[in-house]
Amino acid sequence: MQKYIYQIKDFPLDNDSLLLHETLFHNANGYLGARSNFEEGYPEGYHSIQGQYINGFYDFSTMPQAEKLYGLFEEKQTMLNAVDTQGIELRIDGERFSMFEGKVLERIRTLDMQNGVTIREVLWESPGGKRVLVKVRRMASFNILPLFLVEYTVTALNFSGEAELISSHIGEVMNYFNPDDPRVAGEADKYLLPERDILEGSNSFMLMHTSKSNLRMCSAVRNTLDKATKEKQIKQKGFHTEQILTVECRQGESITLYKETVLCDSVRYSDPVKAAQETLDRIKKTGFTALYQKQRDYLDKFWNECDMEVYGDPELNIAVRYNLYQLMQSVGKDRYSNIAAKGLSGEGYEGHYFWDTEMYMQPFFTLTAREVSKNLIRYRYTILEYAKENARIMGHNKGALYPWRTIMGRECSGYYVSGSAAYHINGDVAYAVISYYLAAGDLELMQECGAEILIETARLWMDTGNYYKGRFHIHEVTGPDEYTCLVNNNYYTNAVAKYNLRWAAKIIDLLAADGMADEVVQKLQITQEELDTFKAAAEAMYLPYDQELGINPQDDSFLEKKIWDVNTIPEDKKPLLLHYHPMHLYRHQICKQADTVMAHFILEDEQDLETMRRSFEYYERVTTHDSSLSPCIFSIMASKLGKSEAAYAYFGESAKLDLFNTHKNTRDGIHTANMGGTYMAIVYGFGGLRIKADGLYLMPALPDQWEGYQFRIRYRDAGIRVSIRPEHCELELLEGDDAVVHVYGKAYELKTEKIIIRRGEQR
Amino acid sequence: MQKYIYQIKDFPLDNDSLLLHETLFHNANGYLGARSNFEEGYPEGYHSIQGQYINGFYDFSTMPQAEKLYGLFEEKQTMLNAVDTQGIELRIDGERFSMFEGKVLERIRTLDMQNGVTIREVLWESPGGKRVLVKVRRMASFNILPLFLVEYTVTALNFSGEAELISSHIGEVMNYFNPDDPRVAGEADKYLLPERDILEGSNSFMLMHTSKSNLRMCSAVRNTLDKATKEKQIKQKGFHTEQILTVECRQGESITLYKETVLCDSVRYSDPVKAAQETLDRIKKTGFTALYQKQRDYLDKFWNECDMEVYGDPELNIAVRYNLYQLMQSVGKDRYSNIAAKGLSGEGYEGHYFWDTEMYMQPFFTLTAREVSKNLIRYRYTILEYAKENARIMGHNKGALYPWRTIMGRECSGYYVSGSAAYHINGDVAYAVISYYLAAGDLELMQECGAEILIETARLWMDTGNYYKGRFHIHEVTGPDEYTCLVNNNYYTNAVAKYNLRWAAKIIDLLAADGMADEVVQKLQITQEELDTFKAAAEAMYLPYDQELGINPQDDSFLEKKIWDVNTIPEDKKPLLLHYHPMHLYRHQICKQADTVMAHFILEDEQDLETMRRSFEYYERVTTHDSSLSPCIFSIMASKLGKSEAAYAYFGESAKLDLFNTHKNTRDGIHTANMGGTYMAIVYGFGGLRIKADGLYLMPALPDQWEGYQFRIRYRDAGIRVSIRPEHCELELLEGDDAVVHVYGKAYELKTEKIIIRRGEQR
Repeated sequence: MQKYIYQIKDFPLDNDSLLLHETLFHNANGYLGARSNFEEGYPEGYHSIQGQYINGFYDFSTMPQAEKLYGLFEEKQTMLNAVDTQGIELRIDGERFSMFEGKVLERIRTLDMQNGVTIREVLWESPGGKRVLVKVRRMASFNILPLFLVEYTVTALNFSGEAELISSHIGEVMNYFNPDDPRVAGEADKYLLPERDILEGSNSFMLMHTSKSNLRMCSAVRNTLDKATKEKQIKQKGFHTEQILTVECRQGESITLYKETVLCDSVRYSDPVKAAQETLDRIKKTGFTALYQKQRDYLDKFWNECDMEVYGDPELNIAVRYNLYQLMQSVGKDRYSNIAAKGLSGEGYEGHYFWDTEMYMQPFFTLTAREVSKNLIRYRYTILEYAKENARIMGHNKGALYPWRTIMGRECSGYYVSGSAAYHINGDVAYAVISYYLAAGDLELMQECGAEILIETARLWMDTGNYYKGRFHIHEVTGPDEYTCLVNNNYYTNAVAKYNLRWAAKIIDLLAADGMADEVVQKLQITQEELDTFKAAAEAMYLPYDQELGINPQDDSFLEKKIWDVNTIPEDKKPLLLHYHPMHLYRHQICKQADTVMAHFILEDEQDLETMRRSFEYYERVTTHDSSLSPCIFSIMASKLGKSEAAYAYFGESAKLDLFNTHKNTRDGIHTANMGGTYMAIVYGFGGLRIKADGLYLMPALPDQWEGYQFRIRYRDAGIRVSIRPEHCELELLEGDDAVVHVYGKAYELKTEKIIIRRGEQR
Repeated sequence: MQKYIYQIKDFPLDNDSLLLHETLFHNANGYLGARSNFEEGYPEGYHSIQGQYINGFYDFSTMPQAEKLYGLFEEKQTMLNAVDTQGIELRIDGERFSMFEGKVLERIRTLDMQNGVTIREVLWESPGGKRVLVKVRRMASFNILPLFLVEYTVTALNFSGEAELISSHIGEVMNYFNPDDPRVAGEADKYLLPERDILEGSNSFMLMHTSKSNLRMCSAVRNTLDKATKEKQIKQKGFHTEQILTVECRQGESITLYKETVLCDSVRYSDPVKAAQETLDRIKKTGFTALYQKQRDYLDKFWNECDMEVYGDPELNIAVRYNLYQLMQSVGKDRYSNIAAKGLSGEGYEGHYFWDTEMYMQPFFTLTAREVSKNLIRYRYTILEYAKENARIMGHNKGALYPWRTIMGRECSGYYVSGSAAYHINGDVAYAVISYYLAAGDLELMQECGAEILIETARLWMDTGNYYKGRFHIHEVTGPDEYTCLVNNNYYTNAVAKYNLRWAAKIIDLLAADGMADEVVQKLQITQEELDTFKAAAEAMYLPYDQELGINPQDDSFLEKKIWDVNTIPEDKKPLLLHYHPMHLYRHQICKQADTVMAHFILEDEQDLETMRRSFEYYERVTTHDSSLSPCIFSIMASKLGKSEAAYAYFGESAKLDLFNTHKNTRDGIHTANMGGTYMAIVYGFGGLRIKADGLYLMPALPDQWEGYQFRIRYRDAGIRVSIRPEHCELELLEGDDAVVHVYGKAYELKTEKIIIRRGEQR
């Protein structure tokens, strides 16, 4: 069981560590999230990023442009800090519990990823000498998504006396801001305005509405004590309610307060107050014990489907599992939400969704939790109309252009040069839809929404590109690498557009073959002529290749620029984006992250292995990895190219990023895309997994540092376990249909019997 | 004398016309300017852009970036509305004079460009039947630059009575703003703060300081009546002073109020109050009659040096002279100021200086008013340190990069893509220095400052560009055409950089030959090696050429983009920049203005005539002329290519732009660059004038529509008049040394005797 436990004893109490741990131990379920703030608060001089969030619940905020040009966005969406219901003040015979007063004799923080809870245990001696054990267990329920539960237990160790618990519900909260840090908001804006404040018995409800986006949200708090109270009092002042519970506390005995928070927003519920009331009823009916059990069941199923392990490296395993667990905590479970760049753990990037989802996180869900992956596709379908609107703003007469960053569907990028210009997001969304189809073989979802996404994105490419000397060109776009912007024929973009165009036509053919195409063909007025133009453009797509170097240039002019050798960058100039004007970066051969190398990973059949090898080596010299999205991709490609040491080193950078706070900004939230990248680096990288139209491929490699590793995936109807050892590779069908698996280029039919394949012939 | 008079009788009184005429009849002298607001004010419902400006007097204002990236500017300078001293209210026996009450029986507005005054004459009948003639003569003195004089004369025509004149001095004013118009400020900012308010007798002084730029400005007002007053009263309230003068007014007699405004700022005067006092004393000593005479003398000299005429087309002549006069009104006469895009006539472009000066206006001064041209170069030298600072911000280790738009030297561009990225401004400044040197042969100024400018700008090119396959490339810059940005090897930029590099080396050689180089060589630590790198880069400069089309592509990828035929643009989509996202524009072959065509004009020896012809025809198809800087250049090149009809048509667009308000925004200020362009279209265009290292060249052509034309220029020490008639071209040496002039390719020695050359062999 220890394998799902991340624990810190004697956790440090300096402000930086506290902020970091607020993120690392946050509770979330994809719908709501709460940072791990101390219930009892902090003394003066400390500051905490107090936050509780709802995925996809936002307000509009202004973003004035220095010069107003047509189509530049001046309004964005921002995820809201929704409420503060974490406060529980404890007084023992009048002495207030605090981590910073009296004596903290023991303290432990635990993340239990099997039971889906975090626990803080503190053995405390008051200034007056009274010893208590405070144990706080917190859970964001995966079964009842609006529920965030805090179970607060106090045990009197060396005295009998009176305990007072003051549980607060604060409706008027602000988003975090820091005028000194350009990465978070610089001003305090009031987004959530009070509307109604209701007390039903001791249940407190607050209905708030947003200042501009016309959304509402009801927060409800219920406090339940497992002992009879001596005194009960409710104080209300504005949208700040306190319930004060006084209770006898005998030596050796415990008292437990269950504080339930229920958050219902109008994005999902037509009547948020009613929904909150019904949810409280439902929780009551279920009971806490059953709720914990359901949480455990949910996670048992989760781990059963996705578990992976590196044999003999417990520390690395915790890091990897931590990342997978956070992905599940972060991912939206409905069509209104997606995965924010920081999940629900903080306000960095304002809760926006990027291409990170499709290219870094969705693969995990596609291979292990298909229903989640379907919802991610449905989310993109939900915002398709906004993507069409966005395309019109950008000057296109047809097609849809997905916004670079968004919550509800409108573009939130204030700097279009490396925002809206990243047209590749269209190809990324399409790629994820296709990947899902290839893994699941699910034509129904294609009929429901996938085909429409593929067609509208393909149309955008047709309207963007143009033929020049017989080849299809795409001009003035920005590829994944944000250190080179507004370029012509970015290799990644063109390659993914080609794939998008080809599959848009193909999916209609596949649907038609099963008699499922009529609806979409009619709705979108698709003609054979149009599909032929897609195919022709895909066929004619220009993919830059440099004869002299034998590599794919990142774009038409990349190789003509000055080379900036990453080995010459002094430490105090990193990351470059904080020290150089964008134009200066754009003028050099310098990459923030994998771009062409990434295209080689996701579309490996577009060029031969030697081109990929030379390209990898070329770009490695000029890539700073200033983006957390970079090392995992280099790891995967290093694996493919047999660069075992490099693959291992890049993987390490990815796996431990948040847990070891290597980017120094985990306080603002976890790096969800990198977490997905860790998974990819194992499965696609070391495991060499690829799913193509003609089947499942594996090319497992084993880093020298490891004794072996295993992972599980779902392919079509088969649940498959892959285990790699120094001498062999083992395939096991855990459930479902038989499957054909290609390992080291040879096809194996996987049935009930395990298949053991001797390693060695990788290349 | 009529030839210098622009007059409108029965001028319209609708608000749009009034705003337009506020601009057209403004008074300025290069140091100060005043819009032509009615002294008596306007009734409710009308709005006027009340404005008095000082060239180069600014405050800083904020310009937040939607996304904060390194080096993006968040502060700009803005020219201030400095004071309001225009107010003169007139009451005749208690009836208040207004253009909008009573009866306006006659009204005339006059701009007298020979006497340097504007005049408004109004024959008015009060509601009570009293007739007066109000004549307002206004002058911004060219001799005493801080002086703006309003001479206000009232003649009683059919009555005797009492006239009351209320003359105001308002220190607390705001810049113009209009939240509905993106071209002017959207908010009211308070830039000028009151400091001291002094009354000396009836002279009112107000000392103000700026909110951020640490500048001060004193405005002084003195009212002098030519008749004894019956009563005199001064009212003061805050920084608002009113002097109320009551005077007897007999039938048939006139009374005149001389209202002097003196503005002294701390940019030029260490003690602005003292300077204002001294200036008032000096004016008193001089007397008004002498002041008017000096104004006339100044303008006689001006016209004598620059006058041009199109024979037999008085309307066009007025338009052309209007433009030349406005250039003289707009140009700064010291090293602290330059020529704002709207001169001193309005707040459009916030009083910023652009490349417009060097490429569109300075040629006029270089050829006719050399001292002014010298000051324009000295201004660029004054801000050279800021240009170096700017280069560092942009990532360059050496050299200077002139800001795209500025007042005091720091960049004011909020959108660097078509602002700071327009590196060609460096080449433009260098080009103007070289042009001045070629015309004047003045090595002293090169020693004083010209060489330093050439060297520092050249260094910037060396740091920006790089060698690729043996050619010198310049990446990620924006050429003159703002519909294509951040490109590689913009032809214009590379050509002008080549010229800049070559001349930087050459000027040092020239100075050295006269023993004048030591100081600059030492100060800038110039080595022969460095000069050799300049020469080598110039030699190796890559100038794109398309073999297939036989033209110079605007940049490396221009010809690969989709062609956007200007004939297909619907009227309601013009100008494109107001209807399309920048990226959409950048993705097409579409030009806002002359770019390569302009390079062909200014550096015609870089390619053969046929390449220029084909290029002209190619770019003409894709140029919208959405910039007022475009038609004049197309006119010049059309002349060169013998496209007489096109040359004439483009010239017409340029000459009448403001006077006929063809761009519909002259209310915000005149288009000074276009005014310079009109001059250029005649002299460089029809006249075919070029000054090169080896001499003066003329290639005069005559549009069919004209009987002939003449212009005057100064070349080295010779004042030359050029007159073109259908049959011949006449050269006359007006003053100075003999000169060699090449006409139609043949050299003539111009001495005291006129030279008459038969036309016909142009090409």
